[in-house]
Amino acid sequence: MSERKSKKVKGIPIAVIGRLPIYYQYLTQLCERNIERISSKELSNKLHFTDSQIRQDLNSFGSFGTRGFGYHVKDLKKTIEEILGINSKTSMVLVGAGNIGKAIAYYERYEKRGFYIKAIFDQKDELIHTTINGITVLDIESLPYFLKEHKIDIGILAIPPEDAPKVAQILSDGGVKGIWNFSLSHLYLENETIVEHVNITESLLALSYRIKEQSEKQNKE
Amino acid sequence: MSERKSKKVKGIPIAVIGRLPIYYQYLTQLCERNIERISSKELSNKLHFTDSQIRQDLNSFGSFGTRGFGYHVKDLKKTIEEILGINSKTSMVLVGAGNIGKAIAYYERYEKRGFYIKAIFDQKDELIHTTINGITVLDIESLPYFLKEHKIDIGILAIPPEDAPKVAQILSDGGVKGIWNFSLSHLYLENETIVEHVNITESLLALSYRIKEQSEKQNKE
Repeated sequence: MSERKSKKVKGIPIAVIGRLPIYYQYLTQLCERNIERISSKELSNKLHFTDSQIRQDLNSFGSFGTRGFGYHVKDLKKTIEEILGINSKTSMVLVGAGNIGKAIAYYERYEKRGFYIKAIFDQKDELIHTTINGITVLDIESLPYFLKEHKIDIGILAIPPEDAPKVAQILSDGGVKGIWNFSLSHLYLENETIVEHVNITESLLALSYRIKEQSEKQNKE
Repeated sequence: MSERKSKKVKGIPIAVIGRLPIYYQYLTQLCERNIERISSKELSNKLHFTDSQIRQDLNSFGSFGTRGFGYHVKDLKKTIEEILGINSKTSMVLVGAGNIGKAIAYYERYEKRGFYIKAIFDQKDELIHTTINGITVLDIESLPYFLKEHKIDIGILAIPPEDAPKVAQILSDGGVKGIWNFSLSHLYLENETIVEHVNITESLLALSYRIKEQSEKQNKE
């Protein structure tokens, strides 16, 4: 029980992957406070998942716990880093310097995780050559040439949906491996570029649904 | 088969709820183009879900399709509106007028869905009395009084995590039914206020994971 059975990532349920960043953030805090071990009970109290959920989650990619001694914080953190692929520097370009683009550029949480924005592009004359969080906005016309010169892992799309397919193709042709898509355009690229859609309206609609569901429940009581 | 068996929303799987906004956005486009009927095959081509997934999803809250005639666009859209609780005006206050707050205030997608921001609050002197998308930023000190005077459904938190629990409590005490939480603080309120967390870093980590997974697959081939 005390050794890690397997470091190999294979078939981890997507729901577990979704919770890993939550574990990861808390384990990072524990490391900063030099805490070496933590029990599933303490994790449960802090993260508001059940004991058994936590044990099941962590068992899905290895055995970290020793009965009575809890989990080894550093090992667990390192393995989660490896699973999520955040143990190395990941370079990104941001396309779109409007409000959403600006919020992304100023958002520092992912910098701590090894992601950094190497350049920002826009097509609007009034935005080109302005500076956002220390990064100068470049003309979108220069994007294909920039991608030839630099190895970029991820392209961020923060542009209107109608412009998204064309720019996504340029990013994909330029060799990015993934697109973080804030544009609300459902992109389907023919090659193997991976697209992650972010649609914050969906979470607002989900909240709205949960409010409605609760008030219906209360009306019945 | 041609009649709707039930309009009642009961036990719709949460994964289906997650997909409803995608159906909803496309059905809205069809309505604008005066298209009355659509087959599951056409929906499948457009939304890149499988035929059978679509039929299963829509069957989970009623029977809308007629074999050979497809789905009635307007009926389906209206039912999804009812399920998501977006057929009426939902009032919101935004707390936090920094970059994320600004991006939220300028984001117009949810206005079309019946959600509107009634007031913005911040604690920073240099932000108070500035205007964001036509809305004046008020002193956060006045938030409890504002909530007494106005019926507010949703509070949006776009503030640092350390300030979030206190402000969430003020919102909750002031009668909001739900909190849309961008603060990365995991809030647990004692009363029945519903909290929806938005953590965009999680989706970036998920993208990073999918990229790593694919490159491992390619290396094996």
